[in-house]
Amino acid sequence: MRYLTAGESHGPQLTTIIEGMPAGMPLIAEDINNELARRQKGYGRGRRMQIEKDEVQITAGIRHGQTLGSPIALVVENNDWKHWTGIMGQEPLDDPSSEAVKRKISRPRPGHADLNGAIKYGHRDMRNVLERSSARETTVRVAAGAAAKKLLSLLGVELVAHVVEIGGVKAQNLSYSSLEELREVTEESPVRCFDTAAGKEMMAAIDEAKKNGDTIGGVVEVIAEGMPAGVGSYVHYDRKLDGKLAAAIMSINAFKGVEIGIGFEAARKPGSQVHDEIAWEEGRGYFRKTNRLGGFEGGMTTGMPIVVRGVMKPIPTLYKPLLSVDIDSKEPFSASIERSDACAVPAAAVVCENVVAWELASALVDQFYADRFDTLKATIEEQRRTARDF
Amino acid sequence: MRYLTAGESHGPQLTTIIEGMPAGMPLIAEDINNELARRQKGYGRGRRMQIEKDEVQITAGIRHGQTLGSPIALVVENNDWKHWTGIMGQEPLDDPSSEAVKRKISRPRPGHADLNGAIKYGHRDMRNVLERSSARETTVRVAAGAAAKKLLSLLGVELVAHVVEIGGVKAQNLSYSSLEELREVTEESPVRCFDTAAGKEMMAAIDEAKKNGDTIGGVVEVIAEGMPAGVGSYVHYDRKLDGKLAAAIMSINAFKGVEIGIGFEAARKPGSQVHDEIAWEEGRGYFRKTNRLGGFEGGMTTGMPIVVRGVMKPIPTLYKPLLSVDIDSKEPFSASIERSDACAVPAAAVVCENVVAWELASALVDQFYADRFDTLKATIEEQRRTARDF
Amino acid sequence: MRYLTAGESHGPQLTTIIEGMPAGMPLIAEDINNELARRQKGYGRGRRMQIEKDEVQITAGIRHGQTLGSPIALVVENNDWKHWTGIMGQEPLDDPSSEAVKRKISRPRPGHADLNGAIKYGHRDMRNVLERSSARETTVRVAAGAAAKKLLSLLGVELVAHVVEIGGVKAQNLSYSSLEELREVTEESPVRCFDTAAGKEMMAAIDEAKKNGDTIGGVVEVIAEGMPAGVGSYVHYDRKLDGKLAAAIMSINAFKGVEIGIGFEAARKPGSQVHDEIAWEEGRGYFRKTNRLGGFEGGMTTGMPIVVRGVMKPIPTLYKPLLSVDIDSKEPFSASIERSDACAVPAAAVVCENVVAWELASALVDQFYADRFDTLKATIEEQRRTARDF
Amino acid sequence: MRYLTAGESHGPQLTTIIEGMPAGMPLIAEDINNELARRQKGYGRGRRMQIEKDEVQITAGIRHGQTLGSPIALVVENNDWKHWTGIMGQEPLDDPSSEAVKRKISRPRPGHADLNGAIKYGHRDMRNVLERSSARETTVRVAAGAAAKKLLSLLGVELVAHVVEIGGVKAQNLSYSSLEELREVTEESPVRCFDTAAGKEMMAAIDEAKKNGDTIGGVVEVIAEGMPAGVGSYVHYDRKLDGKLAAAIMSINAFKGVEIGIGFEAARKPGSQVHDEIAWEEGRGYFRKTNRLGGFEGGMTTGMPIVVRGVMKPIPTLYKPLLSVDIDSKEPFSASIERSDACAVPAAAVVCENVVAWELASALVDQFYADRFDTLKATIEEQRRTARDF
Repeated sequence: MRYLTAGESHGPQLTTIIEGMPAGMPLIAEDINNELARRQKGYGRGRRMQIEKDEVQITAGIRHGQTLGSPIALVVENNDWKHWTGIMGQEPLDDPSSEAVKRKISRPRPGHADLNGAIKYGHRDMRNVLERSSARETTVRVAAGAAAKKLLSLLGVELVAHVVEIGGVKAQNLSYSSLEELREVTEESPVRCFDTAAGKEMMAAIDEAKKNGDTIGGVVEVIAEGMPAGVGSYVHYDRKLDGKLAAAIMSINAFKGVEIGIGFEAARKPGSQVHDEIAWEEGRGYFRKTNRLGGFEGGMTTGMPIVVRGVMKPIPTLYKPLLSVDIDSKEPFSASIERSDACAVPAAAVVCENVVAWELASALVDQFYADRFDTLKATIEEQRRTARDF
Repeated sequence: MRYLTAGESHGPQLTTIIEGMPAGMPLIAEDINNELARRQKGYGRGRRMQIEKDEVQITAGIRHGQTLGSPIALVVENNDWKHWTGIMGQEPLDDPSSEAVKRKISRPRPGHADLNGAIKYGHRDMRNVLERSSARETTVRVAAGAAAKKLLSLLGVELVAHVVEIGGVKAQNLSYSSLEELREVTEESPVRCFDTAAGKEMMAAIDEAKKNGDTIGGVVEVIAEGMPAGVGSYVHYDRKLDGKLAAAIMSINAFKGVEIGIGFEAARKPGSQVHDEIAWEEGRGYFRKTNRLGGFEGGMTTGMPIVVRGVMKPIPTLYKPLLSVDIDSKEPFSASIERSDACAVPAAAVVCENVVAWELASALVDQFYADRFDTLKATIEEQRRTARDF
Repeated sequence: MRYLTAGESHGPQLTTIIEGMPAGMPLIAEDINNELARRQKGYGRGRRMQIEKDEVQITAGIRHGQTLGSPIALVVENNDWKHWTGIMGQEPLDDPSSEAVKRKISRPRPGHADLNGAIKYGHRDMRNVLERSSARETTVRVAAGAAAKKLLSLLGVELVAHVVEIGGVKAQNLSYSSLEELREVTEESPVRCFDTAAGKEMMAAIDEAKKNGDTIGGVVEVIAEGMPAGVGSYVHYDRKLDGKLAAAIMSINAFKGVEIGIGFEAARKPGSQVHDEIAWEEGRGYFRKTNRLGGFEGGMTTGMPIVVRGVMKPIPTLYKPLLSVDIDSKEPFSASIERSDACAVPAAAVVCENVVAWELASALVDQFYADRFDTLKATIEEQRRTARDF
Repeated sequence: MRYLTAGESHGPQLTTIIEGMPAGMPLIAEDINNELARRQKGYGRGRRMQIEKDEVQITAGIRHGQTLGSPIALVVENNDWKHWTGIMGQEPLDDPSSEAVKRKISRPRPGHADLNGAIKYGHRDMRNVLERSSARETTVRVAAGAAAKKLLSLLGVELVAHVVEIGGVKAQNLSYSSLEELREVTEESPVRCFDTAAGKEMMAAIDEAKKNGDTIGGVVEVIAEGMPAGVGSYVHYDRKLDGKLAAAIMSINAFKGVEIGIGFEAARKPGSQVHDEIAWEEGRGYFRKTNRLGGFEGGMTTGMPIVVRGVMKPIPTLYKPLLSVDIDSKEPFSASIERSDACAVPAAAVVCENVVAWELASALVDQFYADRFDTLKATIEEQRRTARDF
């Protein structure tokens, strides 16, 4: 599977084309809208989330509630495009003194793509950069991921993302008994945290940051259960599924790190406490007694839950300004303030969940017999049987 | 640029083909052998490193010390292949009672690709898995990276990998004044650690682990200086260079996490202490006053040093055995001991350095005018000028 | 550069996302609409071409008449979608006796994707196949090609497609003095034929076919002038530009062959009459005295005009029916007649032209320094100088 | 599946790495050597074919006669490398007056990659181009294809290439009763022609060309039987299997055209005589009464025999010289004569066969469940059943 996305933050719409989804899979707009709505929630979001309730239009690839096998096109309109037609219009400007020209951005914000992007693409108006580098683009990454998540769910693979740290506050209690419980509790939490007490502290930390004109980041964990063993491959470095997950997480706006299983803790423990012993039971087949390696050995799934964490830096658009330099005057300035969120980690958790869903679904589609959803399902079940009886 | 690798750990040889290297670039076997030798050093390595002194043969793509533009083939022979021709031979076995059959492996080692790989590819003899999943393969990833590193060096991009943590011992003193100093000091350190005192503690920790029949992991940091600004791109998620680095590091055998700049620390600090203020000076152009983001904003280089860290888990082959299950008898057993290293982090640092070199060089070759080395160099210099005068 | 397309023939719209176009290139809707209009013309087209005047909407990647460097999204609405919302709707059907179900297609047409596509994707209603396999999709391949053609034109590369054969009638007079003359004359010809007399015979052949309830195909030739020498590469088989052109032409609906330069005639002539002698003149540099090889040697451009021809089979939807088999009843039937064109070769010439434009533009963008249009232009000019002074 | 090749014509060896071949498939050196030997035969070949009997070494990916799933490395040594170590050595030259420098090539041959390649890669010594652009490289494309052909054969897909035209002499009698008969007869023919009488004329034409110091080309046809229906796809232009075959054929050295089924004849016949009527029989399923479309509809296999033809131009290295220009002196000269074949079409037929085999095998591996050879086989058989019972 592959997909491309297009769209500027204040352009008419965001679009994605997904190519390679099996035919005959149930998929409706609601499946996608649910994920879009989850992405827009979260304690600490700014005003824009209220303006825009994102809704998807399916413009290709689905008929009567099922995938056709042909490319799927998904569109999410920007509701405030009507206010931006002058500034973001496609046609050449007649009037060089227009608002669009006046709204030219010559002041790069620290921590954003503004300056590097301007240098790379030769833009003197950095609006040409920030319109695309904006996290608004994750809307359609979520839309693509939602389709992937539906595919996984129909194949018995479930995933949940939750927030394990915000602004230095860590979730302590992670003793959920099932993925379902984790989902239910975190879905109710404004910060997507399973540990209610920690969640309250996180909200307090967000309030504090907002009061200071500052922002805070955090750590998201995605857990996926139900993947068959042996997805991914050790035979060539670029086929390792953990590597693909790492790239996917790191490519989300503002993410600076990714780890699998116990991750960086592996540097502090002896091998005898890091690796997972292998056991076998009649009817169940092989399993690991622990899951410190987070569901991966040799770049392949072990059949244990996949556990991947990513760290999101604080949003760089601060009310408490940082120094930067105007690219025209070369004069320093305090970086301009736009409306902003104090913390976007809960929303980013939804992005992570859907981005991981995409990689897992892609891996299944690429590895199995996937023109039709029924053959994909049948060959995955065969793989599960093979693993159990091996 | 792209490359493929082939080769089993006890097969006749390892091979890589590199496609897309510019023509007219100086490259000799010594450039590659230097890196191969560095990979074989390191406190805590086992016996195999003494047996085999890896040397490259260039079998295509180079003539009279310069790249031709055609694919480069590099071969590293396995010196003990002569002892393995029976067990690892290419031709069908005549004698079903031969040693090769007797040496069949039915006992998967925890933490290795053995079991998942066997299930995936249908191998009842797990030698068929471990021969390829072995870290021996990193030999030719280093060979490919060495060619990339040469290209970078000729373009004014230098990189050094050093060890910042082993078995819970962290380097404290990282106050090197230049990349050159960092290189010189770490090149002399048996654990590739800049902090001599910490280095000694690391060695003690390795000795301790070895004594306990255990293993330890650690954290490697790669620093690259000299990359022009604007390499990578924010316009599409799969073009972000930090994402590619994450995949590259995570795909090294035994790596479980990767972070850029301050990485996971970004979850614990307010935005005002995470982002790097932008400054400008006549003749120098733009720069950041700090480098917490590790040389990346928006998936692109900022022109500041690239800082990427990866965590390596302890080697899973322990003298202190873990429980596993024989796939034929389904009986539990204590995982078999082969000769092993107690700590491979110093060697893995060399792998990281070369793997990062590959990604950076690829990004330059893909982005600039790179059929010829001279045009690549000229367009990169133009990019640097553009960035400085922007 | 890469692009994906989506859209069903009677769905709401066709969409393409183009990724990798350089920033700062002028591009407006009119550039694309011109090509869409050319595609809809041509003697022998059926009724649908009158219903729908295709017009593009640019929904991403362009601002104020210039490319941003971010992905470009282009949409062409299907004007009669309003009549198809029931049959082609995205949501599940409530009423199983609805028209959509009644309009189920169980009769595969010979020469179409219907039967193979149904088997592959498991569709019992072959509308699920034909909606995507329809040549309607070429609308957005032309849209993507139009953007590529604009890029080429701004770089001094011009191309023209013309019809050299229809239904066995061959153009005899091809003595145009310039590409401009070829363009002007063929643009006026209802069959895009330079030879006016042959053009009249072609139209008579089309009339005759229509009268017989039959269809006819033909041969299209694309000529491109101005490409620098050395685009493409001999170093690896999948980098040969003539190979990419062959794939691009063969992948157009109904195309069954492709040839370059004298093509299949090369089997009938001695080598001394096939190869082009090399000459050199001060100020002009190298050139070939003839151009039998159609602008390619070793998978690379020679700097001479590129000449590529493709053959289009007659449209398979005939009034004169062919036998086929109903997939439900397994009874034979005479293949159903839908409104159809008797000859689509003139329109297909426009598709060819734009598809070739895409491949040439992609090759330039991939090979040169192409983040910005100005650097692309500068490095291509440098390449031309290098070739001239070599 | 993917593969890379490396190697210069007079370098030490040719190498290919094949990645993605299923595990557990029987494959031995003899399978590959058979194809290498077939490639070296053929009436009209020059002296080099006698010097070198190509034999493959398998250096990775195979153990005890079976594929491991890991990358396969194949090496073919150049037997006369020992005479070329000075001219083609990898290390820098000490002596600037050495033979290597004296053997510098400044005279580009018409019809070869020499001049374009030199301009592209900046080589003043065109040996740096011709060593790689040489058809010697097809040796390892055949080796990779031989592995693919073995896979196809084990899956019940057989293919045969035969020569249908040389130097204007066409095979008239093509009334073979089975692919096996076609193979047996053409395998005995020095020109790989089924029509014995035409074969004799072809040999006479080759003799005549040789006498004149000239060369001739021809047309090769590849027929593949046994592919299941629905391989390839209509859903996206770059997934059409006929397009991939076109690219593969066109990328063989000296090929200038490719057609499928009746190919260019489709421009001369009405639709009613071009398309293949669909029929159905109990137990057999669907079939076409004719096979004018050569096994493809909508970019997918129909289950009928695949028929693809390619045209090879005469070898450009003539005893009867063509004019060219010395790139140093800019003086015209008569293009230098090296030992050469008068006709390489019979050998090119073997290349075509193996190159087509690669594309077909890749399409199967990519589409089905292909980690293990047994699952690949089972899912392809399921596809055949589905097609039959559809």
